[in-house]
Amino acid sequence: MKLVCTKANLLNGVNIVSKAVPNKTTMSILECILIDATNNEIKLTANDNEIGIETIISGTIKEAGKIALDAKILFDIVRKLPDSDVTIECDSSLKTYINCDKAKFTIIGKPADEFSYLPEVERLDSVLVSQFTLKEVIRQTIFSIADNDNNKIMTGELFEINGNSLKVVSLDGHRISIRKIALKDSYSNKKVIVPGKTLNEISKILSGDTDKDVRIFFTGKHIIFEFDKTTVVSRLIEGEYFKIDQMLSSDYETKITVNKRDFLESIDRATLLVKEGDKKPIIINIGNESIELKISSTVGSMNEEIMIKKQGKDLMIGFNPKFLMDALRVIEDESIDIYLVNPKAPCFIKNPEESYIYMVLPVNFTTVS
Amino acid sequence: MKLVCTKANLLNGVNIVSKAVPNKTTMSILECILIDATNNEIKLTANDNEIGIETIISGTIKEAGKIALDAKILFDIVRKLPDSDVTIECDSSLKTYINCDKAKFTIIGKPADEFSYLPEVERLDSVLVSQFTLKEVIRQTIFSIADNDNNKIMTGELFEINGNSLKVVSLDGHRISIRKIALKDSYSNKKVIVPGKTLNEISKILSGDTDKDVRIFFTGKHIIFEFDKTTVVSRLIEGEYFKIDQMLSSDYETKITVNKRDFLESIDRATLLVKEGDKKPIIINIGNESIELKISSTVGSMNEEIMIKKQGKDLMIGFNPKFLMDALRVIEDESIDIYLVNPKAPCFIKNPEESYIYMVLPVNFTTVS
Repeated sequence: MKLVCTKANLLNGVNIVSKAVPNKTTMSILECILIDATNNEIKLTANDNEIGIETIISGTIKEAGKIALDAKILFDIVRKLPDSDVTIECDSSLKTYINCDKAKFTIIGKPADEFSYLPEVERLDSVLVSQFTLKEVIRQTIFSIADNDNNKIMTGELFEINGNSLKVVSLDGHRISIRKIALKDSYSNKKVIVPGKTLNEISKILSGDTDKDVRIFFTGKHIIFEFDKTTVVSRLIEGEYFKIDQMLSSDYETKITVNKRDFLESIDRATLLVKEGDKKPIIINIGNESIELKISSTVGSMNEEIMIKKQGKDLMIGFNPKFLMDALRVIEDESIDIYLVNPKAPCFIKNPEESYIYMVLPVNFTTVS
Repeated sequence: MKLVCTKANLLNGVNIVSKAVPNKTTMSILECILIDATNNEIKLTANDNEIGIETIISGTIKEAGKIALDAKILFDIVRKLPDSDVTIECDSSLKTYINCDKAKFTIIGKPADEFSYLPEVERLDSVLVSQFTLKEVIRQTIFSIADNDNNKIMTGELFEINGNSLKVVSLDGHRISIRKIALKDSYSNKKVIVPGKTLNEISKILSGDTDKDVRIFFTGKHIIFEFDKTTVVSRLIEGEYFKIDQMLSSDYETKITVNKRDFLESIDRATLLVKEGDKKPIIINIGNESIELKISSTVGSMNEEIMIKKQGKDLMIGFNPKFLMDALRVIEDESIDIYLVNPKAPCFIKNPEESYIYMVLPVNFTTVS
């Protein structure tokens, strides 16, 4: 195999597919990127059997062939090459020469036939969203997946298509995040659970461009994202997602409207008195025209008043401050509505059209503080 | 005590003096910043008995007094306050109220009289340099101090004044860094060893402004830096510095002139094949019109050719690549001269006027590679 491409193209391609290279594995072939120049295109592939990514880079093939190269070493080398044309050449003994200007690297590759290609998946049923929208919706929900495997389904996100609406849901037992997006077209109904890891990696390689689309294919066991010259194939999480509609309620006893930034900054200030891992709740005392935030710890105490608009009853309620902040940080609205029932019932932060709903369970502060 | 100042002023002051707060200490009073408003000015002080910093911030004193407050907590609180006026008030029970807009913090201070003030040092003999020059000269030499205490003198830098010249020297047994700076005025001769830690901390709070000066006072046991409204007092390292003139030599067998950036980037590329902690030398083969850089490891090998101008003999010599890169990174010249004798003698990177001299000892590559 012998091929020539620019450093910039090569670096971009290696960077994209590296997202599917596992950090730790006992199978060294999984740590490799396959460079395949057998079909008149230069295709880079990485695949850890949960998520696989391939991307095509432009360049010139001088001699067809393929080779698997250690992803980390390849990335480090390419990153530090001068901005010029790079030649990659390998011989039958797997010795691989990477030359760029006067820099000449020699590394040993692995046989391409040890590499496991992406699964062949039928691409019938697809949905179109912009790269920007997909990247945003991941950012706005990914923080409330569960970070341990005790309940596999909680480590993923529900992607549900209903006509021209995409609903994305994540939950971890203490809170639920829901985002609804209007699609340009209508599609047949779909409901899959996408691994959080896949979504994290894909959001790193999406450009965030509003003009560029991602085509998402759904099959029984896989989801495929196609954008630019890149294809990401991921296994789905099997099982039935939680029935979230039963957890949502539109009844409330108290509704407050508050400036989002003031509220977020005030909670942020309060938490600095709390050491990490310390489960101190923040106590919110809702009065007629203002809420009072209070936190006290061994370090000291803070209280702060924020002006609000209120409908309904006064209420005192405690929350894990991190859960409130996670939700507030991804809401763009200047002013937000919070719906509450009583100190033991969940609160809902949502807009009237319900394009976002963040539910957070309260903390029993009478026993904690 | 009761005082009012802007958040910005307070944050800046706390940030400056925090540099003298030790990371680990068993004496909790050392973790504090003293706020002293007894002398018609608001003075913040921190002092770990090696280095002490005080700075004066503008503000209004409503009631004279002083209090010691935990530096980390104070910094965290001030950092997150709204951009507005801050009131700090403490009562006789050491309870301290920090109020800013509607945010009200309460923390417990420590008695000011437990705090150890900066030593009273006579300020007679002083030297003037710009903040920019001092910050730069620290950056250009600090990397070659020794990082362990086996030889206390190596953990500091020599500051030597001779007439209108300031010479700064650091060495760690493998290399020497020397910078010479022309001062605006002439001064009596001085020679002190300043702790590396002091220089590291001071370079963080120097503005790097060419128009602003630092006044440096020298005494038998201390060095004092005065700039803006800040005073830094540091102990000196006692003892006699190494006689570096004996280590320098102007004899050479080979002199090469090379583009600094090409040389640095090439060494940087070579090192990516070497795992950290692995002591692989980079081998430089000096020919007539070019040098060849070579490194080989279990990962692979690299070689690269760089065009040079040469006087004298051909030579093959090995170096710890990090030592060469550290020196090259702080030299601004586009093209540099390197002077060599033989594979066992030190190399010198220096300019004709010797405003910088970097000496690096070679590595015996025949036994290593």
